[in-house]
Amino acid sequence: MRLRKKPWVKDEIVKFDQLIETPEEYKGKWKERFGNNPLYVELGTGKGNFITTLAEQNPDISFIGVEIREEVLYSAVKKAAERNLHNIAFLWMDINKIEEVFAEGEVARIYLNFSDPWPKSGHAKRRLTYRQFLEKYKVMMPHGGEIHMKTDNEKLFEFSLNEFCDSGFRLKNITFDLHHSQFEEEKSVMTEYEQKFVNLGMKIYRVEAISPIKE
Amino acid sequence: MRLRKKPWVKDEIVKFDQLIETPEEYKGKWKERFGNNPLYVELGTGKGNFITTLAEQNPDISFIGVEIREEVLYSAVKKAAERNLHNIAFLWMDINKIEEVFAEGEVARIYLNFSDPWPKSGHAKRRLTYRQFLEKYKVMMPHGGEIHMKTDNEKLFEFSLNEFCDSGFRLKNITFDLHHSQFEEEKSVMTEYEQKFVNLGMKIYRVEAISPIKE
Repeated sequence: MRLRKKPWVKDEIVKFDQLIETPEEYKGKWKERFGNNPLYVELGTGKGNFITTLAEQNPDISFIGVEIREEVLYSAVKKAAERNLHNIAFLWMDINKIEEVFAEGEVARIYLNFSDPWPKSGHAKRRLTYRQFLEKYKVMMPHGGEIHMKTDNEKLFEFSLNEFCDSGFRLKNITFDLHHSQFEEEKSVMTEYEQKFVNLGMKIYRVEAISPIKE
Repeated sequence: MRLRKKPWVKDEIVKFDQLIETPEEYKGKWKERFGNNPLYVELGTGKGNFITTLAEQNPDISFIGVEIREEVLYSAVKKAAERNLHNIAFLWMDINKIEEVFAEGEVARIYLNFSDPWPKSGHAKRRLTYRQFLEKYKVMMPHGGEIHMKTDNEKLFEFSLNEFCDSGFRLKNITFDLHHSQFEEEKSVMTEYEQKFVNLGMKIYRVEAISPIKE
């Protein structure tokens, strides 16, 4: 079901403590907000089930969800507020500008869950695993920082494996069918999309990409 | 069609110049036989269409096909003899003993085409991309030596990607559907199996794995 535009969302969403209105001000200073815990960021957080569940399960990790569509982001922020979570924040912004918000080495892990596959080859540059995005992520992460990616889209997965490898990332724990794999922990926390896909018997692809030593 | 045992094959096969009966004697000395050209080895060469075609197209590269089933190997050796190819040889042997035949850094490239998937997990050690095989290949190849792998078996492909990564190989040119990909040269030379699979519309997976610097 496509969400209808709700004009009141823009006013309501900013009322939550978990929504950060001017994230650029925190660049290089996220520890001031969250304390000294590692910072995990989900790019394209959607309705937020994945990251709020992780935040609930991992009080010693700080989480940030980034999303540009305010209709779904509202659901995510509301979930975190209702669960009274304070180790999580949300950024309402365009991922193209992600480097304006995180300083060098500030993000320990990035989650990319069911990113838009942009199937037309002319749109490859918009895919969140396109090499120019990966270069930004490399700067944001320390050596050994991890990108955890899940998708139902085989073509995006194939594209992403190549982009990761060409950009010097080391891959591990590759699975072509997460929910019939041995990765018990990794299959336990699902996004809203993922739950639907799994119910339909569709395969979920997953990979972990480890950031290389900086040149 | 399963090939029937042909008792005469064993006597006939050794009559060809292209069949090397005591390959251990060439360990570290393959250049004495072939000259100073790079050496490419196909492990599990089957009926040999792939490697004999490559040998025909690349006179400045030396090729060796390794195969234990003499019924199919006979076809391969015969193909090479009929085409009067002298930059190719065949070894009738168990790949488990491959280190007895090639010295350190002697093999520039390894081809693994449609290797037996050994689908039972208890048989994983028999797969030609199992990590213990990869360790042997690493010794045989210089840093930057390449393994080119093709298979129709998704599970074997998934397994192999993980084994390559865990063993320090760098991956490139990954495709989940070679014959609908942009890899024109790589799709042009097919094995006998591959031709059948492609005619049936089945997908062929392919990857190149680059050997790491030795520790």
